[in-house]
Amino acid sequence: MTKLSFENDYIAGAHPAILKRLCETNLETLSGYGSDPYCESAKEKIRQACGCENADVYFLVGGTQTNAVVISTMLRDYEGVIAAQTGHVSVHEAGAIEFTSHKVLEIPQENGKILPSVLEEYLKNFYADKNHEHMVFPGMIYISHPTEYGTLYTKNELSEISNIAHTYQLPLFVDGARLGYGLMSYETDVTLAELAKLCDVFYIGGTKVGALCGEAVVFTKGNTPKHFMTSVKKRGALLAKGRLLGIQFDTLFSDNLYFKISRYAIAMAEELKQIFREAKIPFYLESPTNQQFVILENQQMEKLQEHVTFSFWENYDANHTVVRFATSWSTKEEDLCKLRTILNE
Amino acid sequence: MTKLSFENDYIAGAHPAILKRLCETNLETLSGYGSDPYCESAKEKIRQACGCENADVYFLVGGTQTNAVVISTMLRDYEGVIAAQTGHVSVHEAGAIEFTSHKVLEIPQENGKILPSVLEEYLKNFYADKNHEHMVFPGMIYISHPTEYGTLYTKNELSEISNIAHTYQLPLFVDGARLGYGLMSYETDVTLAELAKLCDVFYIGGTKVGALCGEAVVFTKGNTPKHFMTSVKKRGALLAKGRLLGIQFDTLFSDNLYFKISRYAIAMAEELKQIFREAKIPFYLESPTNQQFVILENQQMEKLQEHVTFSFWENYDANHTVVRFATSWSTKEEDLCKLRTILNE
Amino acid sequence: MTKLSFENDYIAGAHPAILKRLCETNLETLSGYGSDPYCESAKEKIRQACGCENADVYFLVGGTQTNAVVISTMLRDYEGVIAAQTGHVSVHEAGAIEFTSHKVLEIPQENGKILPSVLEEYLKNFYADKNHEHMVFPGMIYISHPTEYGTLYTKNELSEISNIAHTYQLPLFVDGARLGYGLMSYETDVTLAELAKLCDVFYIGGTKVGALCGEAVVFTKGNTPKHFMTSVKKRGALLAKGRLLGIQFDTLFSDNLYFKISRYAIAMAEELKQIFREAKIPFYLESPTNQQFVILENQQMEKLQEHVTFSFWENYDANHTVVRFATSWSTKEEDLCKLRTILNE
Amino acid sequence: MTKLSFENDYIAGAHPAILKRLCETNLETLSGYGSDPYCESAKEKIRQACGCENADVYFLVGGTQTNAVVISTMLRDYEGVIAAQTGHVSVHEAGAIEFTSHKVLEIPQENGKILPSVLEEYLKNFYADKNHEHMVFPGMIYISHPTEYGTLYTKNELSEISNIAHTYQLPLFVDGARLGYGLMSYETDVTLAELAKLCDVFYIGGTKVGALCGEAVVFTKGNTPKHFMTSVKKRGALLAKGRLLGIQFDTLFSDNLYFKISRYAIAMAEELKQIFREAKIPFYLESPTNQQFVILENQQMEKLQEHVTFSFWENYDANHTVVRFATSWSTKEEDLCKLRTILNE
Repeated sequence: MTKLSFENDYIAGAHPAILKRLCETNLETLSGYGSDPYCESAKEKIRQACGCENADVYFLVGGTQTNAVVISTMLRDYEGVIAAQTGHVSVHEAGAIEFTSHKVLEIPQENGKILPSVLEEYLKNFYADKNHEHMVFPGMIYISHPTEYGTLYTKNELSEISNIAHTYQLPLFVDGARLGYGLMSYETDVTLAELAKLCDVFYIGGTKVGALCGEAVVFTKGNTPKHFMTSVKKRGALLAKGRLLGIQFDTLFSDNLYFKISRYAIAMAEELKQIFREAKIPFYLESPTNQQFVILENQQMEKLQEHVTFSFWENYDANHTVVRFATSWSTKEEDLCKLRTILNE
Repeated sequence: MTKLSFENDYIAGAHPAILKRLCETNLETLSGYGSDPYCESAKEKIRQACGCENADVYFLVGGTQTNAVVISTMLRDYEGVIAAQTGHVSVHEAGAIEFTSHKVLEIPQENGKILPSVLEEYLKNFYADKNHEHMVFPGMIYISHPTEYGTLYTKNELSEISNIAHTYQLPLFVDGARLGYGLMSYETDVTLAELAKLCDVFYIGGTKVGALCGEAVVFTKGNTPKHFMTSVKKRGALLAKGRLLGIQFDTLFSDNLYFKISRYAIAMAEELKQIFREAKIPFYLESPTNQQFVILENQQMEKLQEHVTFSFWENYDANHTVVRFATSWSTKEEDLCKLRTILNE
Repeated sequence: MTKLSFENDYIAGAHPAILKRLCETNLETLSGYGSDPYCESAKEKIRQACGCENADVYFLVGGTQTNAVVISTMLRDYEGVIAAQTGHVSVHEAGAIEFTSHKVLEIPQENGKILPSVLEEYLKNFYADKNHEHMVFPGMIYISHPTEYGTLYTKNELSEISNIAHTYQLPLFVDGARLGYGLMSYETDVTLAELAKLCDVFYIGGTKVGALCGEAVVFTKGNTPKHFMTSVKKRGALLAKGRLLGIQFDTLFSDNLYFKISRYAIAMAEELKQIFREAKIPFYLESPTNQQFVILENQQMEKLQEHVTFSFWENYDANHTVVRFATSWSTKEEDLCKLRTILNE
Repeated sequence: MTKLSFENDYIAGAHPAILKRLCETNLETLSGYGSDPYCESAKEKIRQACGCENADVYFLVGGTQTNAVVISTMLRDYEGVIAAQTGHVSVHEAGAIEFTSHKVLEIPQENGKILPSVLEEYLKNFYADKNHEHMVFPGMIYISHPTEYGTLYTKNELSEISNIAHTYQLPLFVDGARLGYGLMSYETDVTLAELAKLCDVFYIGGTKVGALCGEAVVFTKGNTPKHFMTSVKKRGALLAKGRLLGIQFDTLFSDNLYFKISRYAIAMAEELKQIFREAKIPFYLESPTNQQFVILENQQMEKLQEHVTFSFWENYDANHTVVRFATSWSTKEEDLCKLRTILNE
């Protein structure tokens, strides 16, 4: 019997509708580098979905790449990017931001989120410091939604962060590698249009939400850095067959596919939570999205690993470990049934 | 009528066998970042094809990215990479090598090729210069095969360059973005196994030879830079769904598909050359591969552009332009017939 | 009346013996870039003072430059440098390390020091993390002695840190911008020879200990990065008239001048501490070196600033501020008398 | 007998007037990082000398550093700097520009100079190239005056280059590491005020014209990059004791010292040329400044090296070598007499 897998949200290929479209268009002659009509169509659909007529949309291949490209093209020489200490750019990107010569200014977090008050305090202190000309200037605010811990900002929190950012004339950048799962959570009051209004640049994750690869970057205010395509090329991030990204996002933003499959993953996550509750497995924190963090006793964990794949997250104490289970558009209901059975054995 | 296109070798999607395989494997649960069995299988097939048991194989997404990753992880701090003045890394990658803090040391070329004698002279002069500690040390030799101009190194030339490189303890890196078209040329005496033996690292281009994206990097002597995967991640070049690359290369290296489709493109190129000869259109240079460079009189060019797409290459003189026609695995014989007709009108 | 100044330890020019020597040698014809006999002589004296026959010594111009040059030439691509959250490289160098594409891995500190237990825990956790290939590898340990807060490591602590570093095969780098004041503290058991033995590279600060500029980098085990001079040049850090640094360090390491003037600054700091104690001004922390951090009530601070210059350090609470007073080789005893009078008014 | 040295223009310490001033001011208490009154005074004198009321003046330590700081803070992400193939930034700075992630766009030269027509052609071709979005954009023009070969631009040439630069909205940057020797040449029609008017940023070399170290950067139009000081710090180029640079330039720009000593070096160079002419030693090219390039037969060169030090420049042919003799403010007339005697023996 193959193991059940809740290892992450990119264990399967692409949503079948995407593959179908790739096959249908495969032999069409299209020009390269994102100049084809599928890219154009996908961009327009995304602008519509965001309610942002003036937005500029670009397609990149992966999340780390997107973070590095966006941050390094928007920061000025003397600036760094503010991020949570647990932020993806702070911890899990092998120094991709620093590779572009910019510092990640790490600030304290709570459940993966930056609190508006903490952000404000940080900025106030920076400018109050009489030596700040010897320090890296804050030049952008990076948050992810959902965060590394699956948590979500409320509309109120996003507004506050946005206000603080703009008071200090800093762009707000939202990493939306799992954005669909955030927008379709049962417990959010944030819509795509509101998010787009509150931030200056964000991206709509494809890799973790049904695509083979691809992230759609949205500069919400026509504020794309000059000659952005050349900067993308300079970073080795310009895909020759841009169609691969355009067709995928065009499909994801047709008939609300992106939102439907995200909603499905959320339903699966709610079911997963119920299974854990029944099995009396404690949650590490409350996550309203597709990533669920639970605390397993170590022996229990090892036994479970014989049948189920999930992710190590961090050591909890000498006898317990925090692990992550992820659902996605590809999660099968029958696998959840099997998991319930295994946990109840 | 849609235009005929000979614009480049990435105007179509993927070879149908690749798409078929992506569809068949789509719902399999696979782990990420290149650790899946398709990647393993593809690597093994590539090692076999190269006759290099000890080679390390890695998959990256695109050509510029691959050049930047390989060069910057192999060079030492004080080193730069030697390339032809017309080399892709010298001219057409928006400064991707310099982005990694290394200089491209440009040397003269002939029809896109570095002559062994020119290389040797350059290296001799460098070490003879009493001020060379104030200069960028040559740390690697970069050539492409085929070159930017579709030309090929002979086995003899490759051996000489390899000898010179190793005399100076420099790794030889071959950019094989179009490698298939080089190996399958009617006029080459270089095989994949010989290439692998003569150089230290090279890559087998997928993007331009039938894949949606992807380049297979081969470190021929087990000489992969330490913690290469982390360096790849640091450059935003690590694909989450590594399967996308593994499955494509596994297909390309099954049943000699890579070589068959390359050979087909060469046959189409020979036909294309014949058409130009018949039409008395002069060649800019002799190319034995899938890229053909011809000189068009400017009015003739404009008229032709009404029906055919091709690439501007460079101005020849006030009244003439050098343009490029490319064939590929996706070139249709009927399109060549139509081109013949148009040119004979 | 001009204000008394305890602003920092670089408010005066050079120790007069240095200027005298610069004048005496001024018209001698010397070759450049550190190849003159004064540099040679200074290097030999430093090797003697360190008890390190095999040490390589290089002279650079300033502290931030030295940190960036040493760290970035010793780290490998996938590595970052561990430093205290309050470390100079973490906070006060405008991102000079990140400019070289490497992350500063900031860990918690106590009074400016890295505790051996905290360091060990960090390293253990890093390697225990199953995702560490997606993270920046620790590649070097950076400490400063004295620290940013004037505190000192004990011989025991240094040994423990050195052991941990070497267990994990990481070089230990000691920033000695104020090294003289550390070695000559009344409360240290660390000698220059011991420091040299325990670490892999360190520097002896000139700028803050009597020189116009200059830091002497000591690779204690002949472990200089290959072609270091070229890497220095690449970073714009190679001084044409290397004599300026050689003559200064040759003077500082003749007749124990470096140690004598450091000892004098320590005596002045002890006197300064006595003055604060008498005036019932509380210390922010216990510093055994030339930098003293005290807590002033804000009104008191403003009044004092009319007559005395010192450095803002950080806000303590709404009504109090932490400020720094520094002594140096140039501190005048009469200025301390005047300060005592002012504080007793 | 010690050898005569014409090795370069930085074989001696500082002009005695500078040392005198350093001694006189040595014990004054001054604040750091260029905020002292000597820096202020020097800046004002330089503005006066340049006839540029709105210029911003900054002091840096050395030439390579200055080139890297100015170029990398003025270029945008997607830009490189145009320089002659023989330019200092192209060849002799160990890749310091590339270290900042920018390409040096090397163009052909004549006697070290960029011809206006060549520059214009290059720019025209760049924008005519339909693929230029995949290439490094020209973002600045770098020339040196005098050039690497001691040659000078005429006022006309400078005007033309300036016009071309501004037509393409590119800043013109003049490397003036040896500027004094250019301005005081007997054969120039360029004044400091004209130079300042025609370019956007330039620097006045101190290291090679009488200072221990130091280059004065002049942003001629108040066009300093934002937070320049922080960018300088980020590059490890901010000197703590800024006084060292301020006092030196204040002295050099008092009583026309900078110009007087440059003129003296030119007079010595004219004498040197006369000596070579008498000895029938051929010039490699005509240089009107302090660097003279002559062609020596190899045996003659070896014999001469027994008594005289000069610089190897390049091999001329199998039997001849190009060597450089430099004069400076410190050249002694008696040394020229001795050289004449030696050459006539």
